[in-house]
Amino acid sequence: MPKALGFAAQAADKPLEYFEFERRDPTANDVEIEIAYCGVCHSDLHQARNEWGGTVFPCVPGHEIVGKVTRVGSKVTKYKVGDTVGVGCMVDSCRTCANCEEGYEQYCDNGFVGTYNGEDKHSGGVTFGGYSNRITVDQDFVLKVSDKLDLAGVAPLLCAGITTYSPLRHWGVREGHKVGVVGLGGLGHMAVKLAKAMGAEVILFTTSPSKVDDAKRLGADHVVISKDEEQMKAWRNSLDFILNTVAAPHDLDAYLTLLRLNGTMTLVGVPAESHPSPAVYNLIAKRRSLAGSLIGGIAETQEMLDFCAEHGITSDIEMIAMDDINEAYERMLKSDVKYRFVIDMATLKQK
Amino acid sequence: MPKALGFAAQAADKPLEYFEFERRDPTANDVEIEIAYCGVCHSDLHQARNEWGGTVFPCVPGHEIVGKVTRVGSKVTKYKVGDTVGVGCMVDSCRTCANCEEGYEQYCDNGFVGTYNGEDKHSGGVTFGGYSNRITVDQDFVLKVSDKLDLAGVAPLLCAGITTYSPLRHWGVREGHKVGVVGLGGLGHMAVKLAKAMGAEVILFTTSPSKVDDAKRLGADHVVISKDEEQMKAWRNSLDFILNTVAAPHDLDAYLTLLRLNGTMTLVGVPAESHPSPAVYNLIAKRRSLAGSLIGGIAETQEMLDFCAEHGITSDIEMIAMDDINEAYERMLKSDVKYRFVIDMATLKQK
Repeated sequence: MPKALGFAAQAADKPLEYFEFERRDPTANDVEIEIAYCGVCHSDLHQARNEWGGTVFPCVPGHEIVGKVTRVGSKVTKYKVGDTVGVGCMVDSCRTCANCEEGYEQYCDNGFVGTYNGEDKHSGGVTFGGYSNRITVDQDFVLKVSDKLDLAGVAPLLCAGITTYSPLRHWGVREGHKVGVVGLGGLGHMAVKLAKAMGAEVILFTTSPSKVDDAKRLGADHVVISKDEEQMKAWRNSLDFILNTVAAPHDLDAYLTLLRLNGTMTLVGVPAESHPSPAVYNLIAKRRSLAGSLIGGIAETQEMLDFCAEHGITSDIEMIAMDDINEAYERMLKSDVKYRFVIDMATLKQK
Repeated sequence: MPKALGFAAQAADKPLEYFEFERRDPTANDVEIEIAYCGVCHSDLHQARNEWGGTVFPCVPGHEIVGKVTRVGSKVTKYKVGDTVGVGCMVDSCRTCANCEEGYEQYCDNGFVGTYNGEDKHSGGVTFGGYSNRITVDQDFVLKVSDKLDLAGVAPLLCAGITTYSPLRHWGVREGHKVGVVGLGGLGHMAVKLAKAMGAEVILFTTSPSKVDDAKRLGADHVVISKDEEQMKAWRNSLDFILNTVAAPHDLDAYLTLLRLNGTMTLVGVPAESHPSPAVYNLIAKRRSLAGSLIGGIAETQEMLDFCAEHGITSDIEMIAMDDINEAYERMLKSDVKYRFVIDMATLKQK
């Protein structure tokens, strides 16, 4: 079995450190990938620190993976050696439940297999993620990546990109729509770019006046400082859809009241503690919906990557070396990143 | 101006009592109606006791009105003397906002005119509702009632009927759907009848084992005692839509987790205190929605009345005399009514 190098948390209260482990040799349907870049998602930090519970240690995080195919199994038809590919949050699912059959692997009734800290069907242990030099994944969970785009900037599309693309598509965002995006972080900055590319008028809500210029550069038509009641009031009953990317508990009513008749606000962040309970009357008054959405299916992730290639969309990133991961986590906690850290895997050396 | 007899609350802490007032003579577009029956809605009690704030006294409640046309204005084309008609929760709206123009008068951006305790455009005071022997209403807010149905049982359709019909229709309930109805009161018993008539498989959720037989008689295919965790668990991830009619604060997650992928739970009751905040993860995990819905538009209310006439649907009622209204309120507070009180207006006499 090929040796893999990586960075792992050995316990919830330990920093990530160098770790060697084994990856499987490709089975008939597997693709082996040399990882070029891996994005750093806030859920990596949550799971490395066992903040959601259930983390098995050692834990190798990382589910925004791009790289090149190095070997393929005998039945692999979709990829060949040298192809540029990506792997996102899932490496398998049951493939037999109604949701999987409809292409909604992310909503698999038996639980999809996470790219890390998932139940590895092959090893019997847990899956190890993309903070590593290589990975072996079933071809059905591997994505084609266009060579048109900067590869490091593509990595975050595999989670931050699809997590925002999927709800924007599902709720039919298009030209003529007024779309709110709450929060300008890793997810929010992708939502602004994608909603804009879909033709919508984009209104970005942020607590930080310092983000106004950047939000406009990214494509927002309007930027609203959400602490300013007068500014908020001006948008009441006017938005068709809101994508709320903020995971910290906050007042949902302040945004629900901005939706017009039949509008939906979709949450993609899971707060550690509940949001204050939204007022039922704000839902009833304009037949509004409060919804949630989880990443995207494999076919939809491919659609998103193709959409991004067509529109020249990548994530705004800050490249780091593998050794800088613990510092990056600390900066991420302070929202001190524009807008996603990406690990340059060429910096990961045997120790 | 014609004298009207009615029952009014003179203050929030006073019982309803006999009250004389004036109705306007029909203007060109008005229909004058002799009220035969008026249903008793829980919101009548809330407003008579000023539990939502904003009640102007004296307050004559009642917005489930059926009766006969006695006079019509010179421009009235839709109704003639002797017609059987109904009036629901609204007697006017701005008619010019985008929502009104689309037939969503209930979501009027300028606020519809409530049948009682609304701003009366004609008198300059507040509107007086259906606990009365007569009412004068613009023809555009009057509904045709089929003579095929028992008139007393039709009255509650004007609020309880449309409040449940509208979301069932909006969320596309049809044959092949599994539809949950939470609570078996005035709204819930209508929801069961209507969802069944739309072809759905209906699952009624109640805390009361004593309601099982009645729920089945009304058309429920399954009755689940919501306190029984095992029974609840059996329905996880399976319902297409849930209509939640319970206004008392309760655990929404217990129901959200029963929805399948893309399922929606719609609330039609406004709790005095918030429900416990639903877990965001339960929305995200299966792309579920929590929504709200408010009565229905005028065209949709007519559609509902026609649907009920076609399917022989009326409310199960308990008829009371006007003098019994205060006792009826007390019994309503104890949910001691199957399933709607209706006032026989023939019992209202001049005092």
